[in-house]
Amino acid sequence: MRIIGIDPGFGRLGIGIIDTQNKKELYAHSLCFETSPKDSFHTRLQSIGSVVRDTCIIWKPDHASVETLFFEKNQKTAMHVAEARGVIVYELLKNGVEVFEYTPLQVKIALTGFGKAEKSQVAFMTEKILKLEKEKRLDDELDALALAITHNSSFREK
Amino acid sequence: MRIIGIDPGFGRLGIGIIDTQNKKELYAHSLCFETSPKDSFHTRLQSIGSVVRDTCIIWKPDHASVETLFFEKNQKTAMHVAEARGVIVYELLKNGVEVFEYTPLQVKIALTGFGKAEKSQVAFMTEKILKLEKEKRLDDELDALALAITHNSSFREK
Repeated sequence: MRIIGIDPGFGRLGIGIIDTQNKKELYAHSLCFETSPKDSFHTRLQSIGSVVRDTCIIWKPDHASVETLFFEKNQKTAMHVAEARGVIVYELLKNGVEVFEYTPLQVKIALTGFGKAEKSQVAFMTEKILKLEKEKRLDDELDALALAITHNSSFREK
Repeated sequence: MRIIGIDPGFGRLGIGIIDTQNKKELYAHSLCFETSPKDSFHTRLQSIGSVVRDTCIIWKPDHASVETLFFEKNQKTAMHVAEARGVIVYELLKNGVEVFEYTPLQVKIALTGFGKAEKSQVAFMTEKILKLEKEKRLDDELDALALAITHNSSFREK
């Protein structure tokens, strides 16, 4: 099974794809897509939808694992992230991908077994599980890969 | 010019279409689209996108007037409305409609000239301007038509 993890965002969107073989998770692809603050809200929303659609067409994931939203202090930012998330989920569904949602807490527990784990510990475990080379990957990419791993471990248990 | 006004929502979505000839506004179509609480969030998001796309294909609006979001007390509801709004704006743009946004205050001023107008006063003026028969129209439909009228008056002034 191929799983796409998505860390939803408006300025930055993390995408991570893994292939699973029984209990093993294999890294396939990851990227951090950025939208420019110079562009209008509408242009940015469209480019987010396009990158999700293009990734679905190229990589053909079976399942998607998308982080649930938590409220940010900045209400305008929170609304924009939610609007972007709506577009992301919508494009995934339109491309026939089954969408699952996980909280940051579920990701921490799935990756480290510890609900109060630091962000760096989750990143460390993500790199270890996927045997990633010590290449500099952006936080958003690692978060997206961690979401994909979380779905694989949760889905197997059901 | 044909203008589609949209009162964004997750449970209920108001759509109102008017045709403008110089300063005149003529009623073309309106509806209140409801999604079922029995359906999943994903199904509801998809049906919202579909109704916007279908309406664009059938009515071919030039401009859209969409209400800006204000924060609701219920955070989960606010997030769902924002996610739905993202999908609405995204589908309008994909269908070549130029999207404009207005606050509830701008609508009140455009329709009644008074920023503290009651909802019923805005509804009364909407019915009067569009010469609507005393037919029972839902609030969401009238709100959407008021948004379309707001765009016409604002756009003319520029």
